[in-house]
Amino acid sequence: MGNRETLGIKMLRKEYDHIILLAHGSPDPLWKQPFESLYHQVSQTYGEGNVSLAYMELTSPSLEDVIATLGKEVRQIGVLPLFLAVGRHLRQDVPEQIAALQTDGLDIKLLPPIGDDERIKQAMQAVIANHLGKV
Amino acid sequence: MGNRETLGIKMLRKEYDHIILLAHGSPDPLWKQPFESLYHQVSQTYGEGNVSLAYMELTSPSLEDVIATLGKEVRQIGVLPLFLAVGRHLRQDVPEQIAALQTDGLDIKLLPPIGDDERIKQAMQAVIANHLGKV
Repeated sequence: MGNRETLGIKMLRKEYDHIILLAHGSPDPLWKQPFESLYHQVSQTYGEGNVSLAYMELTSPSLEDVIATLGKEVRQIGVLPLFLAVGRHLRQDVPEQIAALQTDGLDIKLLPPIGDDERIKQAMQAVIANHLGKV
Repeated sequence: MGNRETLGIKMLRKEYDHIILLAHGSPDPLWKQPFESLYHQVSQTYGEGNVSLAYMELTSPSLEDVIATLGKEVRQIGVLPLFLAVGRHLRQDVPEQIAALQTDGLDIKLLPPIGDDERIKQAMQAVIANHLGKV
């Protein structure tokens, strides 16, 4: 079990040199605060060089802005959408943005949205149960 | 501690007769699947009469549709946005929708978005750490 976990970590580490958290963006300047706060937490904990925060539209920096700042040693990028579901944006707009930024030396992969993860699903159920007075 | 928890549950139960989960809505018909799945889980667990699912725009049912189906015994409604952050929609559009649906016998309260909850924040950090190969 310990070996399997260690192997899992190595595989993940090898898969991506850098993770870009991608939030939607909004005309409201206060909207980005929780995403910046989340980014601050994870970059403090896991290293600023390993993770960035970008926005799909309306809020800067864009995916293009962020990728332009990365060093040449970064060749495998995972884009993790801070979205709860896949719609037009993740099925069409973001893949188009990524396709335009793909180069010979750079492999950018769009990950499933964070809302797909079982941990988020379980946390949402817990919050709802709490509002229903059940926990 | 047991007493405090019991009291907490009673207070929450008294506060809302019904919780409406409010998701954004999308032109993509597949987009709503994770929200319907979440709704199915919580309504099966905590009772269909206690919780509904509505969409702010583009996807039906709307908040208005859902409220029209509720019985007269429902007087206190909590609207829980399945959003990660507060922007124009939750600061302006949804409060306007709610104000238009408020009647003498009905008290509709807009709750903070689900993304504000510490359980969601921690789950997001865990998912990101996992993609970074740190857990």
